[in-house]
Amino acid sequence: MTGALSSWKDGPAKQAILDFVASATRAGPGFVPVTDRIAAFDNDGTLWVEQPVPPQFDFQFRKWAEEVRDDPSLAGRQPYKAVAEEDAAFFERAATQDPQVVAPLLEAFARSWAGMTPEEFEAQVRAWIATAKQPKLGRPYVQLVYLPMLELFDHLKANDFRVFVCSGGGRDFMRVFAEETWGLHRENVIGTASAFSYRDGRIIRTGDVVGGLDLGPGKPEHIFAQTGRLPVFAGGNADVDVEMLESATFALLIDHDDPQREFAYTKGAVKSLAKAAELGWTVVSMKNDWTTVFADQDGPP
Amino acid sequence: MTGALSSWKDGPAKQAILDFVASATRAGPGFVPVTDRIAAFDNDGTLWVEQPVPPQFDFQFRKWAEEVRDDPSLAGRQPYKAVAEEDAAFFERAATQDPQVVAPLLEAFARSWAGMTPEEFEAQVRAWIATAKQPKLGRPYVQLVYLPMLELFDHLKANDFRVFVCSGGGRDFMRVFAEETWGLHRENVIGTASAFSYRDGRIIRTGDVVGGLDLGPGKPEHIFAQTGRLPVFAGGNADVDVEMLESATFALLIDHDDPQREFAYTKGAVKSLAKAAELGWTVVSMKNDWTTVFADQDGPP
Repeated sequence: MTGALSSWKDGPAKQAILDFVASATRAGPGFVPVTDRIAAFDNDGTLWVEQPVPPQFDFQFRKWAEEVRDDPSLAGRQPYKAVAEEDAAFFERAATQDPQVVAPLLEAFARSWAGMTPEEFEAQVRAWIATAKQPKLGRPYVQLVYLPMLELFDHLKANDFRVFVCSGGGRDFMRVFAEETWGLHRENVIGTASAFSYRDGRIIRTGDVVGGLDLGPGKPEHIFAQTGRLPVFAGGNADVDVEMLESATFALLIDHDDPQREFAYTKGAVKSLAKAAELGWTVVSMKNDWTTVFADQDGPP
Repeated sequence: MTGALSSWKDGPAKQAILDFVASATRAGPGFVPVTDRIAAFDNDGTLWVEQPVPPQFDFQFRKWAEEVRDDPSLAGRQPYKAVAEEDAAFFERAATQDPQVVAPLLEAFARSWAGMTPEEFEAQVRAWIATAKQPKLGRPYVQLVYLPMLELFDHLKANDFRVFVCSGGGRDFMRVFAEETWGLHRENVIGTASAFSYRDGRIIRTGDVVGGLDLGPGKPEHIFAQTGRLPVFAGGNADVDVEMLESATFALLIDHDDPQREFAYTKGAVKSLAKAAELGWTVVSMKNDWTTVFADQDGPP
């Protein structure tokens, strides 16, 4: 395909992607039947900026701060306390599924959103999208989506892959902007999921999480539940993506090594970088493999 | 579209479908944005024969009979006892979600399939498809799919609807044959769902049911969970479909009134037929609205 991956520099990462997709779609030992062509991508740090915190945390922290203003008795409890004290370490422990962190987080999520209709929730997410800006880059988070990854979606779709996003973040949060931001239907978004109850002709959020956190082994579990398959192509950037990447035939790992255009860090990704070396995954250097990082890098529109 | 719904007789049901799809796809008050075009269909009795029992019961009963042969101590317990005694009333109570029936059924499902890989389960479903025959019609169940409904899928897909099957039956059971029988990808199949665990690089069925039974209010709940939307178009045939049909803009109810070509019964559908009259749903008479019922009605291929 001419012009595919135009924001990717010629080099081993781009070539590995093009070669894999070519071999998956032509007769031969690498051929993948169309029915099996599932691609799955992490979101935070893989499709958009996750520093200083994953964008959904920004959304959620604002909500919790409002709740503390309405009910100061919450201020001494987690996770409200960690928000007030900007205790990043508390939230980093969520990625390791520390039960001391996960339990109060899930309780607080439930408290924030239980009883709400999807339309009410969507309106709050849209208000956040319109107003919140990433502190270093000064733009709304949905503008901080990596253009090369959207081009990769296009290339995969043009080759009859069905593209899914599979994030530890909230499924229903991502579904609000999935269509306009990623060009993916809501049913192609997999994430940590709230339970919903259908009552009096309406869908209402119950506050419970169903099916467990979509992190670590939860990622292939959630992908299998949604699609009936494990992915053929997977992309991620962190230790919580290792199982999803291992479960795929082709694994792409984004390395955040571009302090000038984005961020440089390996925190939360040391294990996945080691696995990539061990298993021969394709590592993408944001600095060296991408000519452009953001679609609007020349400034806000 | 010329030639759409060619096994449907000209009449009010066919006209209502054509009119609704036409209005959904052209500018005007009935227009439905492409992103919202979700169609959802029950399976048993809506897409294939469900008499004398839903086909998955035939599959499951054979499995339970094998288990009783291996462990005769099971014979006095439910649901094994009901299988041995051909106690249809016991299984009909499942449709009303009677906990006295649902609990032992779910326990037995778990016992049958826990610890199994999807590949092992799929092989057992395929063996059943190849050998089991519907007793009255003498053909494998997957040949007893209603041709007019497959034509309806084609018409909806040609008009940019995404078609989903949403059944009280097992999601993973249906996914085995969804692609070849319905022309739908596995991710378009929604049903009562087993939990899966990812261990040592493999997906394993845990035996638990996650997200509740996909019946009654569970149907719109499951559709919302899978797609992030309620359906615009829905088709069903039974009381357990009422909530799904109510949640849609256009509702189609299949009436089994054709004893010659299929079966005639209103059992399990009395409430839904009353709702159809009350709410103006489109009722399909299998006898009068369909020129052809099965793709292979002239006999086994």
